[in-house]
Amino acid sequence: QALPRSAIELRCQCIGTHSKFIPPRLIRNVNLIPSGPHCKNVEVIATLADGREVCLEPTAPWVKLIIKAILDK
Amino acid sequence: QALPRSAIELRCQCIGTHSKFIPPRLIRNVNLIPSGPHCKNVEVIATLADGREVCLEPTAPWVKLIIKAILDK
Repeated sequence: QALPRSAIELRCQCIGTHSKFIPPRLIRNVNLIPSGPHCKNVEVIATLADGREVCLEPTAPWVKLIIKAILDK
Repeated sequence: QALPRSAIELRCQCIGTHSKFIPPRLIRNVNLIPSGPHCKNVEVIATLADGREVCLEPTAPWVKLIIKAILDK
């Protein structure tokens, strides 16, 4: 669900968000992109253990919890 | 303070963390890397408006606040 990433991101990267819970152990990293002139949405892109990139919904409670869990570990 | 990023990250990316506050408007994105076999530390790497990458301390209150602010905007 993430569009290919260009060197400099000039537009929104996500065309949708993954709605189902992803177990934290499958997440290799999480990229937070604030909204700005390039895109009106906050974007949260998780790279999974298998290399896939999925867009997550920044307002979803489980997404906030996963981010908190990463920081608190 | 961030080492060059390889396609697959096999070691810690940060050799230190930036201690001073960075205004959120200067942050283009924030990458959260959970600890794992590749690195025992949680790593938080911010890309700044000028393209520089800086490592942030995941336990610093201002870092947590910036991440919260990005998600809540």
